[in-house]
Formats: sequence, structure tokens, C-alpha cells
Amino acid sequence: MRSVIDVSDLSVEELGSIIATAEDIIENPDAYAERCRRKKLATLFFEPSTRTRMSFEAAMLELGGSVLSMSSAASSSASKGESVADTAKVITQYADIIAMRHPKEGAALVAAKAAGIPVINAGDGGHCHPTQTLADLLTIHRRFGRFSGLNVGFCGDLKYGRTVHSLLRALMRYENVSFTLISPEELKLPAYSKAAIENKGCPCVETADLEAAIPSLDVLYMTRVQQERFADRAEYERLKDTYVLTPEKLAGAKPHLAILHPLPRVNEISVRVDDHPGAAYFEQVKNGKFMRMALILFLLEQNDGGPVRLPGRWTGEERPGFVCGNPACISHVEQELSPLVKLTPEGEKCLYCEH
Amino acid sequence: MRSVIDVSDLSVEELGSIIATAEDIIENPDAYAERCRRKKLATLFFEPSTRTRMSFEAAMLELGGSVLSMSSAASSSASKGESVADTAKVITQYADIIAMRHPKEGAALVAAKAAGIPVINAGDGGHCHPTQTLADLLTIHRRFGRFSGLNVGFCGDLKYGRTVHSLLRALMRYENVSFTLISPEELKLPAYSKAAIENKGCPCVETADLEAAIPSLDVLYMTRVQQERFADRAEYERLKDTYVLTPEKLAGAKPHLAILHPLPRVNEISVRVDDHPGAAYFEQVKNGKFMRMALILFLLEQNDGGPVRLPGRWTGEERPGFVCGNPACISHVEQELSPLVKLTPEGEKCLYCEH
Amino acid sequence: MRSVIDVSDLSVEELGSIIATAEDIIENPDAYAERCRRKKLATLFFEPSTRTRMSFEAAMLELGGSVLSMSSAASSSASKGESVADTAKVITQYADIIAMRHPKEGAALVAAKAAGIPVINAGDGGHCHPTQTLADLLTIHRRFGRFSGLNVGFCGDLKYGRTVHSLLRALMRYENVSFTLISPEELKLPAYSKAAIENKGCPCVETADLEAAIPSLDVLYMTRVQQERFADRAEYERLKDTYVLTPEKLAGAKPHLAILHPLPRVNEISVRVDDHPGAAYFEQVKNGKFMRMALILFLLEQNDGGPVRLPGRWTGEERPGFVCGNPACISHVEQELSPLVKLTPEGEKCLYCEH
Repeated sequence: MRSVIDVSDLSVEELGSIIATAEDIIENPDAYAERCRRKKLATLFFEPSTRTRMSFEAAMLELGGSVLSMSSAASSSASKGESVADTAKVITQYADIIAMRHPKEGAALVAAKAAGIPVINAGDGGHCHPTQTLADLLTIHRRFGRFSGLNVGFCGDLKYGRTVHSLLRALMRYENVSFTLISPEELKLPAYSKAAIENKGCPCVETADLEAAIPSLDVLYMTRVQQERFADRAEYERLKDTYVLTPEKLAGAKPHLAILHPLPRVNEISVRVDDHPGAAYFEQVKNGKFMRMALILFLLEQNDGGPVRLPGRWTGEERPGFVCGNPACISHVEQELSPLVKLTPEGEKCLYCEH
Repeated sequence: MRSVIDVSDLSVEELGSIIATAEDIIENPDAYAERCRRKKLATLFFEPSTRTRMSFEAAMLELGGSVLSMSSAASSSASKGESVADTAKVITQYADIIAMRHPKEGAALVAAKAAGIPVINAGDGGHCHPTQTLADLLTIHRRFGRFSGLNVGFCGDLKYGRTVHSLLRALMRYENVSFTLISPEELKLPAYSKAAIENKGCPCVETADLEAAIPSLDVLYMTRVQQERFADRAEYERLKDTYVLTPEKLAGAKPHLAILHPLPRVNEISVRVDDHPGAAYFEQVKNGKFMRMALILFLLEQNDGGPVRLPGRWTGEERPGFVCGNPACISHVEQELSPLVKLTPEGEKCLYCEH
Repeated sequence: MRSVIDVSDLSVEELGSIIATAEDIIENPDAYAERCRRKKLATLFFEPSTRTRMSFEAAMLELGGSVLSMSSAASSSASKGESVADTAKVITQYADIIAMRHPKEGAALVAAKAAGIPVINAGDGGHCHPTQTLADLLTIHRRFGRFSGLNVGFCGDLKYGRTVHSLLRALMRYENVSFTLISPEELKLPAYSKAAIENKGCPCVETADLEAAIPSLDVLYMTRVQQERFADRAEYERLKDTYVLTPEKLAGAKPHLAILHPLPRVNEISVRVDDHPGAAYFEQVKNGKFMRMALILFLLEQNDGGPVRLPGRWTGEERPGFVCGNPACISHVEQELSPLVKLTPEGEKCLYCEH
């Protein structure tokens, strides 16, 4: 059996196959309308996210399956202190596959190890959110038919943006992708991520000037610049409009530029951009649904009834007494969870939250 | 494409056709059991209302469709600041039709203009709630087979009662309907509504005496008299029992009197009335489900894939700098919403909340 | 028409038939996959319980039916003051059967008397929770093929544990079942329950020593010992580990011992016990789903369209002026509810909460 904690759990071949399935679903929806008949998806959202939850639920319904839905932890027995592992074991009795969002980092890994059915991580705190990245990949693939040879710009909060880091890592697995990193100094891509790009040999440019960068881009991935990220409020005020995308800033763009955004936006893309031919962020939402359909099919087909097979990234060593330094880590709240660590070039890391 | 913000968006002919469909559904439910197969209704309730939400969901299920459900805003990305327009564009990617309840007045109009699928207003603050009025109309039609020639009494809070105003306006479109307005002085029908009735030439009587009025009525529409509406608590205490319907007050009623109530009731209709043959408020609930089925079918059939066509009432002019005076208006919270106004005999009004 | 407030509403013959149906469902799931086509279950959870709600919903989906779901009272019109009886009458217009959880004791009885469709009590405060007991019974029956001749141990909080009292009463209806009651002095089974066992002539042993009792048991029903139950915190600290089940304590157990727990557990069963062949608490969860399927089928088949038929236990006499002494009783909040009492050997009791 397989589960998906991060997009890297899927090989490039598997990613290609999932993208191909999604594109076939788009072409031939009727052929898939009964594929999950009598199958049930449980959407366990310990933290609310209507968009993501409904995307999974629409996906399962379009496959002919049905849904058990938990939209927030207020309505869960989590408040009675049940562990994530026990919840996963219980839901195994009711459903065929789980999509889980949880505020604690590493929660999806704990669930995947305990469950007897596939688990899809629908976001575990600030850690991983693989189906967002799948949506991003399909959107680029449908616009260009390929990943190689593209210059992909990321704009906004490159320091904390989980979706940025995840898509960057995914795109680095393809040949000949170049990156343009557009952000204020305070929100630059972390040095270790920058190093990873360079180690891969991917061409990479850093700039603070969105408008100047646009003409070189094939893809522009926008994210939000949040005031809370700035120590200096005046600096935020000075910069904030620089990273708001408007039709004016798009004047010099390539005709095929694709503009992506993980949504929800606040004001970082003007609604006046919505009619621009490059605006791809609502089709990105629809693509998210199609990729979730393809991923559900992939995981249900892979379910051989055996224990879950996870990649080496999720295998650690016991370290009795190890205490993770990340307060958002699942290890601080989960009952009887063995502390597991893994050795990385930067030292010992908690296996669950990778802190 | 069509959407329904208010019951007046439907012509009298369309209303007749929707009532006919509802009555056919009641006669031949099997013929409709698969009509919405593979269609999805999204119930977006930014404000909870289990009764209304379940009515829409039951309607879609009885048509063979399925449901994406959001039961409260706590579980939405509204808390992250997403606009109603963006939510509508996102849900367009997942569903075939939207039923939306929102605490802000005008929210349904904003959604209808942004969405690529039909939107049914399931209540936007104190503004419109068309499917309640559809339920009321079908209940009267099933009891009498007609609207003309009926004397319809409205009792209770006629000043603030949204359902009262909406049903009054709907019934005024039919020939030869007369009205009996029963309320304390503090809660009388507003002068402009009274004037509208008189302009239409509908016979209309005002009284404060429920018991005396009952013998003349064909329909009695009860609503709640809330203490909060009274400046003087003693006055409320003096009056409150006057507007509580009991079997005793019904002694002189016509044998075919139909008693309606939008529910939930608190104590304004004694439970001892529930067994009275005139008590129609629970069949009104069921009729609401049937009318929602008919309306869903109507809107899905009208969906030609084109932009939404709304009646003139919902078309305004841009007024940069116009600020709506209604604090509950959607225009105060929605991102980048152009201020739109319309000219009415009473002056300029906000297009969204009509304040 | 029938409804189920408590497991005692079902005769031993009916219980046997429901267990037989559940076991047939397990053997032949395909034969049941369309049995509730076009039927709707409403899950009305005025108090959240994801586990129980999803069990009911999974049950209905596996019967081919569909679900109207209310996961918490925050999203209900209960906040507008609607009575339980009115809610039941409204949902009757939408659904074919109701599963209701409510924090007030007696709420399910009020709903069952008002509804025009069968009501299953999914927990009314600390009063009854029959489908948990059905899950327990099926789990024992599948492990042993019988109830008679078994020695069933109950461990933990036997004073307040609703599930313990309910399963005890259910098992006392079978021949030749003996009981071992394992608890600290503070949490012993109440005297009247002890007397009921003795009156039935069931062999019964009381002890405070879990480990010593285990070798004699066929079934061990674990429950949680909560700190709040102890006046003396030191006493709690002294005792708490005594009632934590570990593989070590199970060393002397019979090979066929079945370990049950109503879940959620906190730490009263070590996760190291989960792989023990006796650990039956997750199959108990699955059995709960199968019993709910069987109960839904039973009640839908029994629905002759007539008024609800309840056993004598739920028939009382009017006592105007009677005020129930139980603050958690539904009678204190339900509008216009006639005070009903019944005579028992211990004196007059409130009919609703049986206090």
C-alpha cells in the first residue's frame, strides 16, 4: 500500500503517469464517472480549509464514489484527546482512502503509518501540501505540454511560502528548468533552498523587481507578502504595492505567460488581471480537482492490502529521549509516539516534522 | 445563464412553471430521481442554517445529484480574507450550481456576477430569501389551487419580517388578492410597502386584533414578535400573548384556513395547533424542498454556458466614491468591488443591498 | 413505526435477528449495496462526535443510501430556540430516518415521539447510547458465536460508565453469563446495578486487581479512569497505572480473550496491546458500522407509516407541576413539553431522563 505525505513520495515516472491520467480524465470524463463506485473518501480536516476539502470531495464524487466529511476539529473526538494514529485506525474501518489536513507538522506521516488504507496529506501545518503542487504541475503542463525549457518566476514570500518550496523542488526534478526568484530582501528564498537549486545546476536569477522580471518569464507564480513577516512596518508599506500584479505590470509579458497563484489571494493579484489570457489561477483550482482524482485512482489501485510502503525519507531511527525543537510538531501531542530521527547533512532531524 | 437573487427575478410565467414542476415532482417522484445524476450542488452557508441547508441538500439528493457542503464560515477560507467573488469562481470549478447563505446583504448578487454557474440566494442578511417565498407560494397553491380571490393575513412582526415583505410582493403580482395586516403598532408594515399594496389596488385591512381577524382569512401567515423590537419592555409583555396562536383563537376560522409560518417558531404558535387541519407549516417545509428541486432543474436547464442574465433591478451605474450607508452591506468587505448605484423614486440606492 | 432509544427497546429475538443481519452483511456485502437506494439518513449531532457520526454515515452509504449531515449544534437553528420536537418534525420532511446525538438526557425520546420517521438515539447526554452496545454485542458474538457461558470482565469506571451499564444490562438477558467487576473502590458499580445482576442470578465477582482477574476472563471491557472522578488526587495518582492495560498484564490471559473498549482511549490501553490477538477494539468500530446498517434496515422495514410504537418503559403519566431534578434533562429546555413521570420501585421518575 502507498500513501502520499509529500510530492517527492512520487517518482518522476509516477508523476508523469498521474498527470497523464488527469489529462485523460479531462478528455474523457465519462470513462471515469463510475471508477470509484462504492468507494468512500474520508476528508479529515482538523483545521478548516473549504477550498481543499471541497476539491477532494468533488474529485471523489466525479469518480462515482462518496464522501465522509469532517470539516473542522471542533466536531471531532480530537478534543477528547484521541491520538492521530487511533483516528486513522478508526477511519480505516469506515472508508477506503483518507485525505487529512492537520495543524501539527508530521501528522500525516503518523496517520499513514497507522492507517490500513491510503492517506493523502492535505496539509500538515507548514510542512507539506503535495496536492497543491500537483495542481501547479498540471497547470503548467496543460499550458506548455512540458516542463523543460521553461523559465519559472516565483514572486512574493519565498522565505516562508510552503507552496513555493514544494513546487521548486518538484520542478528541479525535470531537465533544463530555470528559475527567477522575485522578492523583497526580507523574504528571499532560504540559503539551503538556493544551494539546492545551484547544486542541481538550474539557472537561477534573484531580483526584487517584479515588473522588470516579467518579460523573461514563461510562468509567474504569485504569492502573498504578509505584513506580519516584516519587522519594520514602514518597510512593508514601502514594498507592498511592488508585489501586487496589475495589467500594467504585465504589459511586457510573453504572450504565453501563465500566471499561477495557490489562492486564496487577498490583493496581490488585482481582479483586473482575471481576464488576462495568462491568468491561470482559477483553472489551477480545477486542475487541482483533476489531479486529486488521478491521485485517488493511483492510490486505490496501488492498495494491495499490505502495510504502507514509504520512501526512505520517512524512515528514521529510534532515539529514546529525543525531543523535537519544533513546537508545531505532532510528536509533542501524540500519545506513545516513539521519537524517530534521521541523519541529514545538516545534522539530526525529527523524522515527523523534519525540523 | 440565470441566477436567482430574489423571487422577483422570476416572471409570473416562470413562477407558474416552477410551481407546476414542483407539483409534478410530488405526483411523479420516480420521474425525477435521476434528473441530476452526476450534477453537484454546493451549499455555501457562511452563516449556519441547518433547516435551509438540509432542504437544498435533500432536494439535490432526490434529483439524483450530490452535494458539496459548507455548513458555517468557521470552516471556510473566508477567515483568510477571500472575497465572495473569488469563492464563487473557485466553486465554479467544483460544482454545477451554488446555494449560498451569507450574513452580508448583497453577497448573493456579487457571487452571481462572478460565478460561472447558477447561484441561488439562500438568504443574504436581511435582504432576500427567495426560496422561502417559493415554499410559501407552493403551500398556498397546493391548498387552494390558485392565488386569486384569497384573503391573506400576515401576523406579528410586519415591520422587519423579511419573509412577510417578500411574500407580500410576490402575491401582489396575482389578480384579486386581498391582505389583512395584523400587528402591534410598533411592528406595522412600513409605509412604502403599504403604499405599494395600495398602488396595486389590492384590498388591504390593518388591525391589531388577531382573534377578530381570523374569521375573514383564507391564509394566516404567522411570524414571531421579538422582545428586542420593543423600546418599552412593559409594552412587549402586555402584547406578547395577543400574537400567540392557540386552538381557542382559531374557533371562528374558516374550515379551509391555511396557517403558515416560516419556522423556526418559538412560542408564537402553540404546539396544540399542530394537529389543527389548518396547520400547514410542516408541509410548508416539505414544499420548500420540492420548490428547491424545481428551481434547481429550472436553473440547470437555463444554463447555456453564457454569462449570467439578471433583471434590470440588478443593473446599476458606477459611482466612484459612493459609500453605502448600510453597515451590513457586502460592499464594505468585498475586495475591489466597484460601487454601483441605481436610481429609484426614493433616490440613489446601493445596487447590492438596495439600502 | 419503531424507534430505538435504548438497546432494551429491542427484544432478545430482535437483537438476535439484527446480529444475524449484520453477520450476513459481512458475508455478503454486495447483496446489501443497493438496499437503501433513494433513502436518506439525517445525522443530527447537536453535540459533536465524529466517530459515531461517520459510523452512521458509512453505514448508510454502504447500503446505497445518502446522508444529510449536521455535525454540531453551532450550525443548527437550535441556537434560535427551536425545540427538539420541531426539529424532528422538520427533518421528517427531508429524510427517511434520523440518527440523533444531543447533550440533553431524554432528547431522543422527545424526537422519537414527534418525528414521522424512525429515530435512532446516537447518545442523549449520559443516558443511553444503544448503538455502542450493539457494536459490543456483535464483537463478542463474532469472537465466540454465543453469549452464554462467558465470563465478561468490566474494568475501570464502573460507577459512571454509560457503556458499561448498558452492556451489562444487555448481557444479563442471556443465559449463564458471569461478570467480573474490576475497579477502584471509588468507581464501583452502583448498588442498584449490582442488585440487578444478583436478582438475575448471574455469577458476579468484584475486585480491584485487574492483573489477577485477567486469567479468568473471556472478555475484558476496558474503560477510562478519569482523574475528575476522584475527590483525592493522590488516590488517583496511586491507582491510575493499575488500570492501564499492557502486554505484561495480559501474560496469563486465556488464548481467546477478547479485549473491548468503546473508544476513544487516552492511555488506558497501551498501544503496544494493539497487535495482541485479543485486541478487538478496532474491529469493534467496524462492527458498530455493520450493526448500524442492520438497525437501519430493521427500522426502515418496520416503518408502516403509523405512529411510533415504544415499549412500556417510555410510557408515563402526566404530572402537571412535576419538575425533574436532573439539570441535564431535556424537560428543562423543551418548549411546551408535558411533564411525564413513571412509577418505579425506587419511586417516581422523570420519563424522559429516567432520573
